[in-house]
Amino acid sequence: MKAKTPSESLTILTDYVLPGETNPLDSLFGGELLARMDRACGIAAQRHAENIVVTASVNHVAFNKSVPVGSVLVIEAKVSRAFGSSMEIYADVWRECMEEKKRVKVNEGIYTFVAVDKEGNPIRVPALQPETELEKQRYDAALRRKQLSLVLSGRMKPEEATELKKLFYDN
Amino acid sequence: MKAKTPSESLTILTDYVLPGETNPLDSLFGGELLARMDRACGIAAQRHAENIVVTASVNHVAFNKSVPVGSVLVIEAKVSRAFGSSMEIYADVWRECMEEKKRVKVNEGIYTFVAVDKEGNPIRVPALQPETELEKQRYDAALRRKQLSLVLSGRMKPEEATELKKLFYDN
Amino acid sequence: MKAKTPSESLTILTDYVLPGETNPLDSLFGGELLARMDRACGIAAQRHAENIVVTASVNHVAFNKSVPVGSVLVIEAKVSRAFGSSMEIYADVWRECMEEKKRVKVNEGIYTFVAVDKEGNPIRVPALQPETELEKQRYDAALRRKQLSLVLSGRMKPEEATELKKLFYDN
Amino acid sequence: MKAKTPSESLTILTDYVLPGETNPLDSLFGGELLARMDRACGIAAQRHAENIVVTASVNHVAFNKSVPVGSVLVIEAKVSRAFGSSMEIYADVWRECMEEKKRVKVNEGIYTFVAVDKEGNPIRVPALQPETELEKQRYDAALRRKQLSLVLSGRMKPEEATELKKLFYDN
Amino acid sequence: MKAKTPSESLTILTDYVLPGETNPLDSLFGGELLARMDRACGIAAQRHAENIVVTASVNHVAFNKSVPVGSVLVIEAKVSRAFGSSMEIYADVWRECMEEKKRVKVNEGIYTFVAVDKEGNPIRVPALQPETELEKQRYDAALRRKQLSLVLSGRMKPEEATELKKLFYDN
Amino acid sequence: MKAKTPSESLTILTDYVLPGETNPLDSLFGGELLARMDRACGIAAQRHAENIVVTASVNHVAFNKSVPVGSVLVIEAKVSRAFGSSMEIYADVWRECMEEKKRVKVNEGIYTFVAVDKEGNPIRVPALQPETELEKQRYDAALRRKQLSLVLSGRMKPEEATELKKLFYDN
Repeated sequence: MKAKTPSESLTILTDYVLPGETNPLDSLFGGELLARMDRACGIAAQRHAENIVVTASVNHVAFNKSVPVGSVLVIEAKVSRAFGSSMEIYADVWRECMEEKKRVKVNEGIYTFVAVDKEGNPIRVPALQPETELEKQRYDAALRRKQLSLVLSGRMKPEEATELKKLFYDN
Repeated sequence: MKAKTPSESLTILTDYVLPGETNPLDSLFGGELLARMDRACGIAAQRHAENIVVTASVNHVAFNKSVPVGSVLVIEAKVSRAFGSSMEIYADVWRECMEEKKRVKVNEGIYTFVAVDKEGNPIRVPALQPETELEKQRYDAALRRKQLSLVLSGRMKPEEATELKKLFYDN
Repeated sequence: MKAKTPSESLTILTDYVLPGETNPLDSLFGGELLARMDRACGIAAQRHAENIVVTASVNHVAFNKSVPVGSVLVIEAKVSRAFGSSMEIYADVWRECMEEKKRVKVNEGIYTFVAVDKEGNPIRVPALQPETELEKQRYDAALRRKQLSLVLSGRMKPEEATELKKLFYDN
Repeated sequence: MKAKTPSESLTILTDYVLPGETNPLDSLFGGELLARMDRACGIAAQRHAENIVVTASVNHVAFNKSVPVGSVLVIEAKVSRAFGSSMEIYADVWRECMEEKKRVKVNEGIYTFVAVDKEGNPIRVPALQPETELEKQRYDAALRRKQLSLVLSGRMKPEEATELKKLFYDN
Repeated sequence: MKAKTPSESLTILTDYVLPGETNPLDSLFGGELLARMDRACGIAAQRHAENIVVTASVNHVAFNKSVPVGSVLVIEAKVSRAFGSSMEIYADVWRECMEEKKRVKVNEGIYTFVAVDKEGNPIRVPALQPETELEKQRYDAALRRKQLSLVLSGRMKPEEATELKKLFYDN
Repeated sequence: MKAKTPSESLTILTDYVLPGETNPLDSLFGGELLARMDRACGIAAQRHAENIVVTASVNHVAFNKSVPVGSVLVIEAKVSRAFGSSMEIYADVWRECMEEKKRVKVNEGIYTFVAVDKEGNPIRVPALQPETELEKQRYDAALRRKQLSLVLSGRMKPEEATELKKLFYDN
């Protein structure tokens, strides 16, 4: 299977924040943002895998800035690394400010999807070939995140988490 | 401020999985589940804080089992630890199987909320006093998760993450 | 078939009142509340019957207090009596007031569901064994309500509605 | 205030039954139908009152026939009687069968609305002047239903419920 | 196949404008109105064709007046002409003003639907027999609109668009 | 005001077709597509105008191919011409076919938006400077469409529609 670049899976979901999607502070509900990011990341994963994909996990979504009702919200999702049948997807989220004539980064999130066949069995996906500097950083960090996830769930022994240990021993 | 127990914030959200909330495999969409968990966790945080709360981050949501359309889905959310103005909330998710006459754990997730006043400024919340064995385990693990989050975002040096380091040095 | 207690079917649906579910007075729409109660009552009926259930009728839902947008709404539904293949479900509805640190009863409603097989034919459900004082009162009243419903729809002669007649003759 | 006829408040809500509104038998969810009827009845009440109205209670909604997904559903709502600031609204529900080239009555329901000012205080509405035979029957029955509701909620003594008592004594 | 009148397909969709359907000016979103008109026109087409129908095109929808949240919106749709398997549907849209005690025309739109069998193949529909003066005007104009649509899409040569040319040559 | 290029307003809305948005043939409802196109076109108009915009009209939306449930749908909207305070927006719609590994054009539509201030009064927008061959074609055609719209609504005499007349006289 030929490796693919992150830009081949780039998915852009631009949409309004409607009044029915807000919390009592008149800002976008966290849960609605999680759902939109899941759809954008799922489409990016499907473009990379060219198969059905299902959400496997969500990691490290940080809500840094609130998004007022009426905003235009832009989600850009790209595959950041592939591992066998699973893919890590990175989503960057901006809101556009009409008044300030610029866009502001409000959030980012990392999702993991698995490619499956019609019976739900995992199937292999192409490897990822990062191109830009940021894509390479995220590609490297994805391995640490994967080891961390395996250690925290008890499926990997800490001493085997080579990439993760460097973080602590090297300091 | 008097400490509170996890059971004081217990929030139960029982609802159907409707046809409009499913993926191409006729199972609950990951994004819809994330949104429901966010609402249940937000209400648990609000009950603990007795103030407005907003989603700060989502960590470690794992989708272990798919949830077919028509299922009854039960989310139980409780505060697992409080840190100043932020709260970690643990959500356990089950689906009920009419045929098998039992309920099956399908998912769990950890969300962080922050209590704010009407201008959106953080305000302190009560400490958490865990009671059951599981609540105590989750309370202890919450500190490691918090350090991990601070290290990964560059707001804490790895050598200061005392709880986290034990995980690696002790092995 | 072994009788069941009301608490075996207790179903709790806790959720926010979102801006998309309000009337021109910024309170929860009656229709949205009816839909939520229907889902909670349906799940309670399904837990009692361990079979598919469909709504048969709605009786005596009284909207006593309005529920402002942003409220946390709690619906608690339990089977109050079973008659062959049909079940009467009682739903109590509260809203939580963050400011007043208490919960307020806003509504109650009574729904009837019928258990059916996959072709939609009625099938028998377990009898109900009430336990608390309130459960016993509701169990007794359910018979009067059933007779009333039969009389009003012309399927029972008033003189045969023994329980109902007492209401009038005894006074 | 000049009396009005039922036809002045006639409200027709024709719409599809969409896949997102169905139960596990692929028929319209009871709760969704209740919500649609509430909106149609609310508009009929508002047309009669020419003021804001809020749902006060729901009585005697019977689900006689299931409504398959894809059906065209027609709700016709008219005021059946007015009492001071409250109005009883009668809704008849049909589904249209493309194949059988006819429409079938599937349901009917009775709602009560109250007219209020912008602070939510009740305000008087015009009296109702029924015209057709069916409108007159429903107008008469509305008084029995009102007495019944008052008796059941303890706000009227059974011996004062003159219309209701006839139902039992005369037989 | 016997011709039908426009009134045989008259479809009325009366519903509220809810807060979840509004733009930043607190008026009904254009897209939501387009969707409601599509459903009303689709039902009118289905009543005329007595078969499944799908949207073929939308022409000349003009948003003349904004519709504030909380309004009652009335859509009346009728077939304006039939051509083989396609039907032109005319939708008139009003909002009701409680304060001004009248209804105001806010919008009108023209949709084209095609009748299809279960495999999606076009099937013939009855001809239309207009009755009122307005129905006759719309029936005549429909032919000009059809020619215009064919010319603009390159499927008819301008010199063959006899009805359309009159518009320019006669002036 | 400096002119802008179409690519400065390019808006991409990529999202799934969910089961709750389908017609009886299990394809995307026309009305849902119209609503999504309205949101994408509205954001493109807002990016061009840097002000609030409202839908003024919809012209010539043709539904050429059905879009099955589960598809990924991509809408790309760009301003095609500006006239004072109004903007014509062109939306191209594709669906992605996982199996056929390509994307297919399914639809296109033309919307008109008007830029307004917070009181709803029209305000001027920048002129458009087309760049590509297709953008230039659409820019020219936009004037004919505008004249056509004015003629059909009686706001321009046919003999003054210079661009439009060429279409007929030159043939």
